[in-house]
Amino acid sequence: MQFKIQRRHLAKRLQQAIQIISSKTVIPILSGLKLELNEQELILTGSNSDITIQAKIPQNIDGEDIITNIQPGSIVLPVPQLPDIINKLPEDIVDFTVDENYKTVIKSGKAVFRLYGQSSDEYPKLSLQQNKSQLSINIKDLKKMIRQTVFAVSTMETRPIFTGVNMILENNQLTFTATDSHRLSRKTIAIEEHQLDQTNIVIPGKSLQELNRVLDEKDEHVQVSLLNNQIIFSTENLFLSSRLLNGQFPDTNRLIPQDSETTMKVHVNEFIHMIERAAVLSNKEQNNVIDIETEDNLIRISSKLVEIGNVNEQLNAISIEGEPIKLSFSSKYMLDSLKTIDSDVVDIYFSGPMKPFIIKTPNDPHILQLILPVKTF
Amino acid sequence: MQFKIQRRHLAKRLQQAIQIISSKTVIPILSGLKLELNEQELILTGSNSDITIQAKIPQNIDGEDIITNIQPGSIVLPVPQLPDIINKLPEDIVDFTVDENYKTVIKSGKAVFRLYGQSSDEYPKLSLQQNKSQLSINIKDLKKMIRQTVFAVSTMETRPIFTGVNMILENNQLTFTATDSHRLSRKTIAIEEHQLDQTNIVIPGKSLQELNRVLDEKDEHVQVSLLNNQIIFSTENLFLSSRLLNGQFPDTNRLIPQDSETTMKVHVNEFIHMIERAAVLSNKEQNNVIDIETEDNLIRISSKLVEIGNVNEQLNAISIEGEPIKLSFSSKYMLDSLKTIDSDVVDIYFSGPMKPFIIKTPNDPHILQLILPVKTF
Repeated sequence: MQFKIQRRHLAKRLQQAIQIISSKTVIPILSGLKLELNEQELILTGSNSDITIQAKIPQNIDGEDIITNIQPGSIVLPVPQLPDIINKLPEDIVDFTVDENYKTVIKSGKAVFRLYGQSSDEYPKLSLQQNKSQLSINIKDLKKMIRQTVFAVSTMETRPIFTGVNMILENNQLTFTATDSHRLSRKTIAIEEHQLDQTNIVIPGKSLQELNRVLDEKDEHVQVSLLNNQIIFSTENLFLSSRLLNGQFPDTNRLIPQDSETTMKVHVNEFIHMIERAAVLSNKEQNNVIDIETEDNLIRISSKLVEIGNVNEQLNAISIEGEPIKLSFSSKYMLDSLKTIDSDVVDIYFSGPMKPFIIKTPNDPHILQLILPVKTF
Repeated sequence: MQFKIQRRHLAKRLQQAIQIISSKTVIPILSGLKLELNEQELILTGSNSDITIQAKIPQNIDGEDIITNIQPGSIVLPVPQLPDIINKLPEDIVDFTVDENYKTVIKSGKAVFRLYGQSSDEYPKLSLQQNKSQLSINIKDLKKMIRQTVFAVSTMETRPIFTGVNMILENNQLTFTATDSHRLSRKTIAIEEHQLDQTNIVIPGKSLQELNRVLDEKDEHVQVSLLNNQIIFSTENLFLSSRLLNGQFPDTNRLIPQDSETTMKVHVNEFIHMIERAAVLSNKEQNNVIDIETEDNLIRISSKLVEIGNVNEQLNAISIEGEPIKLSFSSKYMLDSLKTIDSDVVDIYFSGPMKPFIIKTPNDPHILQLILPVKTF
């Protein structure tokens, strides 16, 4: 195996494929990065037990030779030092040579690195690229959808199903729902056409965060397919497969109140800043719970921290309709929601001091955030 | 006690005075920030057992009233939340009111914070501002001097004296020397006049780092005085006092070889990059030791990491005079030195494989860095 490659292309794709690789893997070979070279492309593969990422570097991009002097082959290289080596090489061209003992020489300018590689024979086989696309999603939409839901997944392994995002495809509507049982976030987008049966699966939150990290908005669409309890996302030069979580995601519709006693309309930025100030004097170990109370059109927020002090502030809502409210909530959850909702104005629907309240935006009927108040008395 | 103050002036000075304050202090009152107000100024004082910093905000700066509605007094406020409160306040003006129970109300716009303050009667008395200056140093020179030496202090408490920087004033020459017994850094500047006797003291490295952080290059000079085993640095609006370390700093002159067998002149950037590359495959737990060897005008650097691989690279020196060399050194120490020496070209003087080598620059005869080679065979 031998090739010369433009360093910046290698560095970019390396960074995409390498981040999920862990030295603490149960399958030792997975602690390395697999490089597979043929006349058309170099494929970098990184994997842990849950996620596999493949990043491809084409031999030629827009008529420019990115990879030259190709002798096809494959190798698995040690990971922790690799990005540092590639990033610090002195010249734009990097020269790789792998000998029959898997010893890999990486040359650039007068710098010569020799790494002990391993045979790729032991590396688990993947054939991600042969899957037929069953669903196509606009990348900007998907990234926004991930960002607007994944923050609400549970970080506790006590109910593993809640560490994932529930993806439902039904009647050309794709819905992501995440909840940690104290809050819920849901986003729906329309899908023009697809080749999937009715789908109700749970994707690990970490896999979606990783997908959001590696997906490049320069690509327009990502292709999605389901196969053997795996979901596969692919663009022209990138493939990410993730295992699905086993088990049934609870029906979350019944959690969402259909009526409300109070509707509050506020400017998001003003409201965020007021809540951030109150959160300064709230208890971090208890999710920064703060109090809210309304009187006519006025919102009062307050919080206290034992032995330190207290804070209160008021703000005129754009409008408040219905009963006055008085309850407590996690300012962290509220800020997470308000900061991902992408709107200048939100409507908050309250149904009583111990019932979940809902945050929506007039801009986008397809996003819903729900937060359960906290009992503080 | 009562006043209104411009928020940005308070925020800036708060950040200077507050960082050294620790919640783990043996004197409970020192976990708070002292505010002292008179008609001319607000003085913020933060302290731990080693360092005290006072930052002053004048009532009026260049004809502009910074502090108004002054009712003099003093208070000690809880620290951890204070910067967050001041930074997040909604308006430019902050209104402080302290009642007879030390409860402090901080208002800005519609935000109202109430903090439980403490009487300042218990706060240790300081009279930093009444000291007579004994030595005046240009701030840029002092900051550079700190930066060029303090990195070499020891971080181990096994020989406490080496956690400090030795300051010697002799014949109108001010010298800082730091060493952790594996390396040494020394810088001398000329002092035009001073009122100190011959001085040989040891200032904790942490105090100098803190001084470097808070000193503002907009001020031209810092005044220095010594009093009761304390050193006091002051500018118009800032005072830092630090305890001195007890004990005698060893005479480091005898460590510095007077002759050399080999003199190597190199371009600093090329040399840094080559060493950084070699350091990628060196052992972090062993100070990233790498090997150097010369042949005629050629420098060869190499390193290896067990089970991962090895690296080697060569570079033409500007010149090498004397015996060829072959030794090992900590790339971390070398990079620390090369990066603080502020020169495009350095001269390195070697005296044999197990004797310290010295790094100097033709630009500045008053800086000297010394590194002890490592025995690797």
